[in-house]
Amino acid sequence: MPVVNLYSDNVAPVADEVLQALLALNHGTAPGYGADAVTARLETRFGELFETRVSVFPVATGTAANALSLSALAPPYGAVYCSDTGHIHDSECGATEFFSGGAKVLPLPASHGRLDAGTLARAIAAAGVGRAHKVQPAGVSLTQATERGTVYPVEAVAEIAEVAHRHGLKVHMDGARFANAAAALGASPAQMTWQSGVDVLSFGATKNGAMSTDAIVVFDPALAQTLRYRCRRAGQVLSKMRYAAAQLEAMVTDGLWLRLAGHANAMASRLARGLACLPATELLHPVEINEVFVRLPPAVMSGLANLGYGLVDRGDGTVRLVTAFSVQTADIDELLDHAHRLAREDNPVP
Amino acid sequence: MPVVNLYSDNVAPVADEVLQALLALNHGTAPGYGADAVTARLETRFGELFETRVSVFPVATGTAANALSLSALAPPYGAVYCSDTGHIHDSECGATEFFSGGAKVLPLPASHGRLDAGTLARAIAAAGVGRAHKVQPAGVSLTQATERGTVYPVEAVAEIAEVAHRHGLKVHMDGARFANAAAALGASPAQMTWQSGVDVLSFGATKNGAMSTDAIVVFDPALAQTLRYRCRRAGQVLSKMRYAAAQLEAMVTDGLWLRLAGHANAMASRLARGLACLPATELLHPVEINEVFVRLPPAVMSGLANLGYGLVDRGDGTVRLVTAFSVQTADIDELLDHAHRLAREDNPVP
Amino acid sequence: MPVVNLYSDNVAPVADEVLQALLALNHGTAPGYGADAVTARLETRFGELFETRVSVFPVATGTAANALSLSALAPPYGAVYCSDTGHIHDSECGATEFFSGGAKVLPLPASHGRLDAGTLARAIAAAGVGRAHKVQPAGVSLTQATERGTVYPVEAVAEIAEVAHRHGLKVHMDGARFANAAAALGASPAQMTWQSGVDVLSFGATKNGAMSTDAIVVFDPALAQTLRYRCRRAGQVLSKMRYAAAQLEAMVTDGLWLRLAGHANAMASRLARGLACLPATELLHPVEINEVFVRLPPAVMSGLANLGYGLVDRGDGTVRLVTAFSVQTADIDELLDHAHRLAREDNPVP
Amino acid sequence: MPVVNLYSDNVAPVADEVLQALLALNHGTAPGYGADAVTARLETRFGELFETRVSVFPVATGTAANALSLSALAPPYGAVYCSDTGHIHDSECGATEFFSGGAKVLPLPASHGRLDAGTLARAIAAAGVGRAHKVQPAGVSLTQATERGTVYPVEAVAEIAEVAHRHGLKVHMDGARFANAAAALGASPAQMTWQSGVDVLSFGATKNGAMSTDAIVVFDPALAQTLRYRCRRAGQVLSKMRYAAAQLEAMVTDGLWLRLAGHANAMASRLARGLACLPATELLHPVEINEVFVRLPPAVMSGLANLGYGLVDRGDGTVRLVTAFSVQTADIDELLDHAHRLAREDNPVP
Repeated sequence: MPVVNLYSDNVAPVADEVLQALLALNHGTAPGYGADAVTARLETRFGELFETRVSVFPVATGTAANALSLSALAPPYGAVYCSDTGHIHDSECGATEFFSGGAKVLPLPASHGRLDAGTLARAIAAAGVGRAHKVQPAGVSLTQATERGTVYPVEAVAEIAEVAHRHGLKVHMDGARFANAAAALGASPAQMTWQSGVDVLSFGATKNGAMSTDAIVVFDPALAQTLRYRCRRAGQVLSKMRYAAAQLEAMVTDGLWLRLAGHANAMASRLARGLACLPATELLHPVEINEVFVRLPPAVMSGLANLGYGLVDRGDGTVRLVTAFSVQTADIDELLDHAHRLAREDNPVP
Repeated sequence: MPVVNLYSDNVAPVADEVLQALLALNHGTAPGYGADAVTARLETRFGELFETRVSVFPVATGTAANALSLSALAPPYGAVYCSDTGHIHDSECGATEFFSGGAKVLPLPASHGRLDAGTLARAIAAAGVGRAHKVQPAGVSLTQATERGTVYPVEAVAEIAEVAHRHGLKVHMDGARFANAAAALGASPAQMTWQSGVDVLSFGATKNGAMSTDAIVVFDPALAQTLRYRCRRAGQVLSKMRYAAAQLEAMVTDGLWLRLAGHANAMASRLARGLACLPATELLHPVEINEVFVRLPPAVMSGLANLGYGLVDRGDGTVRLVTAFSVQTADIDELLDHAHRLAREDNPVP
Repeated sequence: MPVVNLYSDNVAPVADEVLQALLALNHGTAPGYGADAVTARLETRFGELFETRVSVFPVATGTAANALSLSALAPPYGAVYCSDTGHIHDSECGATEFFSGGAKVLPLPASHGRLDAGTLARAIAAAGVGRAHKVQPAGVSLTQATERGTVYPVEAVAEIAEVAHRHGLKVHMDGARFANAAAALGASPAQMTWQSGVDVLSFGATKNGAMSTDAIVVFDPALAQTLRYRCRRAGQVLSKMRYAAAQLEAMVTDGLWLRLAGHANAMASRLARGLACLPATELLHPVEINEVFVRLPPAVMSGLANLGYGLVDRGDGTVRLVTAFSVQTADIDELLDHAHRLAREDNPVP
Repeated sequence: MPVVNLYSDNVAPVADEVLQALLALNHGTAPGYGADAVTARLETRFGELFETRVSVFPVATGTAANALSLSALAPPYGAVYCSDTGHIHDSECGATEFFSGGAKVLPLPASHGRLDAGTLARAIAAAGVGRAHKVQPAGVSLTQATERGTVYPVEAVAEIAEVAHRHGLKVHMDGARFANAAAALGASPAQMTWQSGVDVLSFGATKNGAMSTDAIVVFDPALAQTLRYRCRRAGQVLSKMRYAAAQLEAMVTDGLWLRLAGHANAMASRLARGLACLPATELLHPVEINEVFVRLPPAVMSGLANLGYGLVDRGDGTVRLVTAFSVQTADIDELLDHAHRLAREDNPVP
């Protein structure tokens, strides 16, 4: 039996519940481009989930969700702040610049992936607001959970949003792992977003068990109107939209999204605990969701990699391990057994 | 039992073979973003189908396939010609302009949706090639089959491509219904594309039974390199790409794509024959694929619409009827029974 | 002495008054980027001229004025209508598409270069307002005077603007030859623009005797704020802005702009009258400003061209002759002498 | 008599020689859009100056020169590196992002404004070349002289260019103060540019005594072709181009550009020497061209500012003083007298 691949959560398959929803849908005909019944009720379902009226745009990828959201809130001469680990800055091939017509993504120093309100306030103060030589601060994008596997407390989001709104910036949340953050925080989706000042959310589903869809969830109605056209123009409005909507609906039905994410988080927690007692091993960031950033002894690192665990050295002897919803306790325990054996072989007791 | 909806082929469900392929894939883990085995073998499968080396980029929509293809071949100051019925001009919310950074889509007069080589040659001659005041002709986009349900003979494509290449333009084929065209022509995919001078093809799958994927098929290797980044930057590289690749693979396995399209074409043909003998009815274009453009007596039009057939008056008493792969002979015959009954009731024999 | 070149009005030199203004300015120091006194009083001067509060942005070219104006009023998914002779469509290398992030310029049928309100209304009605597949009507751009040397009566502008505003479109006026139109109409700048519903004007100066500057004159304050940044970002904010502002100031001081344009118009009128009585000669459009579109006998056409008058056959035996402000009565009379001689030689009385 | 304003070199007027060239040109007619004789011989003149064949594009601003140059060498998914003081990153309102269709400008740590080859090499090594998630390194932009008033030795440029070219990047030089750098280095324009690996240069003229024009000087012929259209489309091709070309021609005639810049440099040097002996005063960067970055005693700073010298505190008690070509020795000496007096009054000998 192959070992489990912990390279990312997108190596995982599709959750059964999602696949069943697609199967259940596959009969008869339905209007295209989101005029169908499944897509129609999606806004109701998400409205219930978020306890407010929302607009929902299913899109094919998290990159599309992020870049479209940011293009709706930043003018071409705008600046969007994010943490210096921001996926939008570093890992989306300039999507935000493309979709926005050339806005600037400006990374700010962060701690364990978390931006803080003071840093943002100082950046805005130094930005040259109103001076035509300068791109104008237009938005801030927070990744919840962060790219370092940590979460923002709800209060931290609110503080950042307060700074942003005070200066006329909109707040975007990159929720590629929003479910994991929700499971970790025990906060409600409403508390995590609009009640804390978030204007638009990239709601991640694919990493958490969907097949091919994330969603833009819009709390600020002014942004929704422009997004209709921006999504269409970006080739992000699927003609058989119902198959995307059904994935999202399955995720938010009976709490599946939270259940899957909670399990994934627990697996990372178990993994982190098991690795922490290895010699010369260091957890680089608090393990708050389903990601473990860890420095491992070289022999353990290479040994696990050779076994097929999908470890890729980040260039400095550290690795990111991601436990998808599909990872089982036995998988983690098997990995830990290997890791401890490799550590012993590397460093035998005299 | 509800009647069949003929509004478009994207109202149809997903072909069983495609769904089975997704189910068969749903276990274990696989690298993301197209580094998996299914995506890897896709270029081999398409290479066999097209009898040449190709690059294949699965994308979420036909609009993405078109606009990305055209952005790869036209500079921002370029012009892309299409027929005056071109989907890229009229129905994609300016996607080509967006993806290309502001290239111009220039519609040319066409007959039954078909552009001809002479018209293109005259347009290029009048374009001001080399004059900086003018956008520079960079590409031509042919829709095969056309937006009027007709097909280009292979020779017509070759003539247009010859004109294009002689003047330094690249040739794109919008193949949203490429399968229907192939079934109608009885020509090989190779003959229909690169052997006739096509440089890049939008290979439609969703309209023909896939769930959520079309593909860019690149014959000109120079275009493939830039597309890697353009696709990623456009949020069109799915993290669980294998589920898109598997749809495409299923389509081209054992000739499914041709079988489905051939059936759809046959349904349209049956429908057209049955409608043609109604009084005051006129077929507006040759019925060559799975689309029937027809002027119907108002009572028949509204009667069928009321029954739920998805007829939408195009503003002039005519309608487009599309027979998806899932439409059955009995569906057509039932519709024809209704149509003839409605015609009789409208115009009773004295 | 060389004959006068009538190829365009931009072949002319700079009006003395403009040059003197530059000389008078050339001492001491002044803040850059428009923070100087000349630029500051420009809005006052233009406010007086237009009898309302305006924002004025001096830019280097008419293309910049047009494209920046349109980028301020059309979203990237917008459509801008113009006449089928529109400079923005045909002769600016896609500038509007570039500056707007890919909006579509849609040419409409026009008569003698003039769009009419009914045509615009029909285009908007057919545009698919609110449908995401369609670019959304955002603006209309009128060229006053038109690219065919005609002018819109003030009432015609008002009718078009009324249609535009009723459907939520903004109105741009391409006034590359606004001065010539004003001289022809005898209407006030206010009547010609905001009182007739114009939201933003490209105020042409270079063709009318300035050296290197046109201006965007904004009547709708909402557009002005975004233009500050768009101009800067486009490299259209000159660091020594005062030298651009001084050109504009000179133009509008003591009615210079109207005086120069009125003279230029008179020269065209004299030219048209003189040509009209040639055999086989046809004025193609009413001669209302400083442009004469005329079909000339081939021998006259080539004879005048050989003499150096700058005639370029437009491909169909017709030519555009433009009388700049610097053209003198004697120049016209000399040309007419040549023309009549050439006609006689071509067609000697038997 | 007002004191001299040292806020920037663009507060200065136009050099007499330049103004005379404009006056001398102002007669007769000439073809527009650069088809005139002055523009035609500009490439010859610049070819002589740079000792190689070049293409020259006069544009209205340095921002346009930079952004157009970079748009020609970077694809929309490209990255352009510059120093962390780079004008293109910080002071052009995102022009490069706009013109390039969303390329990323990535600032790198620099010392006294100077990037070094090792830093660039490390950035490229970490950039993820060939990975689709990452913007792809496409160019490096060096400001010569730098935004901190220092110059790159010719060898340093060559080292950076060597690194760039080895990895497939093109080299742009932002020469807003290229003349000042040339005067400081005593190197030839050829040595400073193409002989050191520069592919395209923004040749600054306005700061050095021109009125309203800088130029793009292209050494790599492949970049020139696309720039023709990009300039036109950007509204940067003046219709009366000869008045821009004449400014550039005047600058490079009889070494005017070097004479003016050499004088400006000498004034800064005199200023720096005179300020250096003030108490509590610190020169922040080597004074190599016509800029002095200095920390002044607060009383001196505010005293000079009140006198009208154009000093603006950069937020940290330091100021940039720029000596334009028009600044005279007496101006500097007068300023120094004031400064020393203010220092004495602030800190009287007991």
